[in-house]
Amino acid sequence: MKSPLDLFVSPRTIAIVGASRTPGRAGYVLVKNISQHYREGRVFPVNPAAQEILGLPCYAHLQNLPEPPDIVVISLPPRETPPVIEEAGKAGARGIIVVGSGYAEEGEEGRRLELEMVRQARLSGLRILGPNTTGLLNTEKDLLLTFLDFDEVRKGSVSFIVQSGTFGGGLLEQIRSSYFFGIAKSFGMGNKCDLADEDALDFLEEDGQTRVVAIHMEGTKNGRAFFEKARKVTPKKPVVLLKSGRTPLGARAMLSHTASLAGNDDLFTAACRQAGIMRVESIEEFFDALKIFATQPLLGGRRVAIVTFSGAAGVMGADVLYEEDLALASLTPETIHSVQEAGPAWHRIGNPVDIWPTEMEIGNERAYELATRAALKDPGVDALIIVHSAMGESKTPFKGFTLFPKFKDEFPSKPLLSVLHGNCQFMERARVFLESNGIPAYPSIDRAVRALSHLYRYTLHRETHERGKGS
Amino acid sequence: MKSPLDLFVSPRTIAIVGASRTPGRAGYVLVKNISQHYREGRVFPVNPAAQEILGLPCYAHLQNLPEPPDIVVISLPPRETPPVIEEAGKAGARGIIVVGSGYAEEGEEGRRLELEMVRQARLSGLRILGPNTTGLLNTEKDLLLTFLDFDEVRKGSVSFIVQSGTFGGGLLEQIRSSYFFGIAKSFGMGNKCDLADEDALDFLEEDGQTRVVAIHMEGTKNGRAFFEKARKVTPKKPVVLLKSGRTPLGARAMLSHTASLAGNDDLFTAACRQAGIMRVESIEEFFDALKIFATQPLLGGRRVAIVTFSGAAGVMGADVLYEEDLALASLTPETIHSVQEAGPAWHRIGNPVDIWPTEMEIGNERAYELATRAALKDPGVDALIIVHSAMGESKTPFKGFTLFPKFKDEFPSKPLLSVLHGNCQFMERARVFLESNGIPAYPSIDRAVRALSHLYRYTLHRETHERGKGS
Repeated sequence: MKSPLDLFVSPRTIAIVGASRTPGRAGYVLVKNISQHYREGRVFPVNPAAQEILGLPCYAHLQNLPEPPDIVVISLPPRETPPVIEEAGKAGARGIIVVGSGYAEEGEEGRRLELEMVRQARLSGLRILGPNTTGLLNTEKDLLLTFLDFDEVRKGSVSFIVQSGTFGGGLLEQIRSSYFFGIAKSFGMGNKCDLADEDALDFLEEDGQTRVVAIHMEGTKNGRAFFEKARKVTPKKPVVLLKSGRTPLGARAMLSHTASLAGNDDLFTAACRQAGIMRVESIEEFFDALKIFATQPLLGGRRVAIVTFSGAAGVMGADVLYEEDLALASLTPETIHSVQEAGPAWHRIGNPVDIWPTEMEIGNERAYELATRAALKDPGVDALIIVHSAMGESKTPFKGFTLFPKFKDEFPSKPLLSVLHGNCQFMERARVFLESNGIPAYPSIDRAVRALSHLYRYTLHRETHERGKGS
Repeated sequence: MKSPLDLFVSPRTIAIVGASRTPGRAGYVLVKNISQHYREGRVFPVNPAAQEILGLPCYAHLQNLPEPPDIVVISLPPRETPPVIEEAGKAGARGIIVVGSGYAEEGEEGRRLELEMVRQARLSGLRILGPNTTGLLNTEKDLLLTFLDFDEVRKGSVSFIVQSGTFGGGLLEQIRSSYFFGIAKSFGMGNKCDLADEDALDFLEEDGQTRVVAIHMEGTKNGRAFFEKARKVTPKKPVVLLKSGRTPLGARAMLSHTASLAGNDDLFTAACRQAGIMRVESIEEFFDALKIFATQPLLGGRRVAIVTFSGAAGVMGADVLYEEDLALASLTPETIHSVQEAGPAWHRIGNPVDIWPTEMEIGNERAYELATRAALKDPGVDALIIVHSAMGESKTPFKGFTLFPKFKDEFPSKPLLSVLHGNCQFMERARVFLESNGIPAYPSIDRAVRALSHLYRYTLHRETHERGKGS
């Protein structure tokens, strides 16, 4: 096997040390998640005080298992963990996941424990994921090797490498419940005492299910290895990275969270740029960028059209296009004419295409249908942002948004983004409809334009790399 | 009367020229909105082609009205508007609202029409609001003098001065449907051919219902008058301003939207700062700031505590506190001890207060109750941000958020903000609960800290002014 993580994402046998009969406990949810969903391997609960857990026979010690465990998950108080690693080695295990907290992030004793764990693992050739991790997901095989209690995880093309446990859990639950996009793999890295971001990146580089890589990190222990690996991945797949601890105050908080050390943040930013990583500054920018990478084609050029119900949103969009070094497309006279003639004589069409007056004449759906198709057909338009705005739904039927998936199919090479304003029940219903159909929806045009700008910069990075290979 | 707008917000008689029997039309919604809600005045629909509208007798012309109209609302094609202003003057009107579009924003002819309207108005001493406006709201008197079809407008303390119609409508509908806060007055300014932002500001300065002023503008025709007025208002009430058209591209788009001219944006920003106006950059920052000003006390100092279920959110919060020149509070040994002893021995408490391990021991509600009260009681804490995170609600009961309104009552002098992560149905339910109870909720700690920073900078502005008066 090429990557040490190959085994972690499709083990034939998994032992859970610290398995529990108490619903809600990590050792319970782990057994439940795996036994209920995973079909390609068996799970062995280990707990000397239990006979069975969730109908599965429970074993007192690792040496009692009916066959060697590929992976041993340890969910025990920190001090009890190192001896179990030694036992796991003797039982023939090949990988360890340590899900509990209370290690290096809590101080000197924890740091000592981690060193001891790594020493034990090295003796038997074991690799460790964690500690202080929530585990991992492989949706392709319905493997939920985590103590996070998910209702379901939708399959998709975005893979995560996340450092923090509860944060990563909240992130994945928000993505799932919001229908943003589907997940391929997710690795909870925790304190990274052994396996690190570059190992996960190395695995994802070749993973056929993964089209986009998303990373949340507080720190990396081997920046050189990480950026070298990233440089190889970004010409194939976009890598979007959210890093915390960028200020002295954040760095201090980070030390007691994941025991990460902050380097110079400006150097980190520069290294990201050089490696073709898209660094984002906030959770929202993270989701915004991932949504567009997960669903849209690359962006062929800078020329953006905006079709909008709100002229003010058009002006705001123009501001952010300018700041992000993108441009407003010049529409052809044919495009302008075709929209112009459907609206009132006094209303002049330009880009942004303000269709409020047109909508007053021919209704919401027809106005959006007309303007959207005209803009997407225009050879001078590289991407389209559509702003939809609605009062209460009991009022005028604001149904234009239901047409957009059709346009995505009709013009597959042009990125298509939507912005939703107004009534919040409408916004949420329209958002779920659009995102379930692969059209990212944003709550403001600012955020749509910034996401488009990530797509454009990534496209340039890819093109630069292609040219480099060609010459 | 002091302000020309006094009459606009409580007219005894209102004529609607261009009243319509067709549901959905501006001239229909206007009659409906006023006749169904407003109790302190009468509405006279004017339309030569109708006998009655919504059960009200309809008049052919303004000269036929049974008594002089205080306010005449004109909803007609642009070219038909100027003669009606002349008629309105003869009929004894004192104010005009022109709700249609197709004026200066559409080019030369529209500009000419506006000049003619103003000329006609001056002849009879009339003042004009608009054109290209959606109208105005005065919730104190249930006056919905607008063609926007609201289900209801909640009364509150935030007043709006908005330039753009459909945008302003979407904004107000989002605030209403999202339960962000209640509205006092709202003035749709439109192209500002006569009445301008400074007139609205002058009115709001003395308005007892208004505690916070929110402005969206694309341009101002008399910057000096506007900033002079603002300088008088900001020591009494916070003024939050969102201005578009800050770049050359945005400025060009703006010209065909509200016919506004952009000045130098850096000078505008400097003038805002000098006048004590909080300028924001996006719709979301606008809402984020207004939510805190509408519900929270002033911020007595820079020392912020963070109680969080997610250590990663704590680190992110520390980063933004640093960037915004705020600080992490140093908790007293008593505060630390009281939280420490409820959690596992290996977990050390600091600020950010990471309560995930504590929660594992004593449950979600008790952990939040304990840590929140301890932090708010701490004399070294000026404000508190609470981060709540939840998986599906069918899982562990994440009810800690239900306790926060109690703390708001117990510690009324310390700003209390919440951040919600995780399951999106949970987030929305918790958000509505919290915001209905006067605790602003944010989808990321970045946005909570930035809102707090607006509050802090405004508090400093107020203090500087108070000191200036004292000396």
